[in-house]
Amino acid sequence: MTTDTAVLEGGLADRSAWSARDRCSISRAMQVVGTRSAMLLMREAFYGTRRFDDFASRVGITEAVAAKRLRELVEAGLLERRPYQEPGQRTRHEYLLTDMGRDLVPAALALMQWGDRYLSDDGGPLTLRHADCGGRIAVHVTCDRGHDVPLDQLAVEVNRPTRH
Amino acid sequence: MTTDTAVLEGGLADRSAWSARDRCSISRAMQVVGTRSAMLLMREAFYGTRRFDDFASRVGITEAVAAKRLRELVEAGLLERRPYQEPGQRTRHEYLLTDMGRDLVPAALALMQWGDRYLSDDGGPLTLRHADCGGRIAVHVTCDRGHDVPLDQLAVEVNRPTRH
Repeated sequence: MTTDTAVLEGGLADRSAWSARDRCSISRAMQVVGTRSAMLLMREAFYGTRRFDDFASRVGITEAVAAKRLRELVEAGLLERRPYQEPGQRTRHEYLLTDMGRDLVPAALALMQWGDRYLSDDGGPLTLRHADCGGRIAVHVTCDRGHDVPLDQLAVEVNRPTRH
Repeated sequence: MTTDTAVLEGGLADRSAWSARDRCSISRAMQVVGTRSAMLLMREAFYGTRRFDDFASRVGITEAVAAKRLRELVEAGLLERRPYQEPGQRTRHEYLLTDMGRDLVPAALALMQWGDRYLSDDGGPLTLRHADCGGRIAVHVTCDRGHDVPLDQLAVEVNRPTRH
């Protein structure tokens, strides 16, 4: 048990005066990928799965759920649905990662790392390495000066976007 | 749209021969924190929220949902429920982060970073900095030799735990 938490700066320090509500980016992200089936379909896309039947069977969900979730992921912009045709077959569709979808990788790997550590007896079923150098992969919270940042060193401020 | 995906190694290369199913750590993690309300309650714990009423009102969920989710998060080991008493008041309970709960920070921040980039017009409502040095915070996928690792450089192998 720890009492270390983030450091709320400026007007945020008085927590009774604000709440994140629906502008929160974690909340918005969970509205898009906050179901087990959506996140596992994205996992499959990261592994190279493209075809509807493979998505459904590898995630272990019904075709109805797979169809609904894939449609939502396409509409949200994480996957692109593209027609393909094999000789003598009717036209089918495959699902390819967009940049938006690929940029979900850190979140998926952070969940994997956490599950490996706390929800598995043997460190989890998979090991991830950097293909180039063979180094073990981890997800880190770092600042742009290269420091690893623990929760009690995380300063939270109101974003003041530059006006255009 | 990108066709870059992870590199499946060894027996994993034949995707028809395996699927992750219920041993997958992403799947297990989503069974614990794969609802919007659970993840937002954890966000609140990271911000320093401890009391039941604050959790419910700051996340914007009913007391019934807050009670159910907090109980699940305590049972799963992410929060610890501890009694406290103010003078002249009855005993109440507060919810404190465990190490397991605090180690979910990279996943929550990875979702925030993704939502800031793709689901917000202005980069999101909050800015995160390293309290010590002021540097901007980001979540990175890196190898233990310090390289940033994109998806197409992610080699996935079967984990072979050391036997004890």
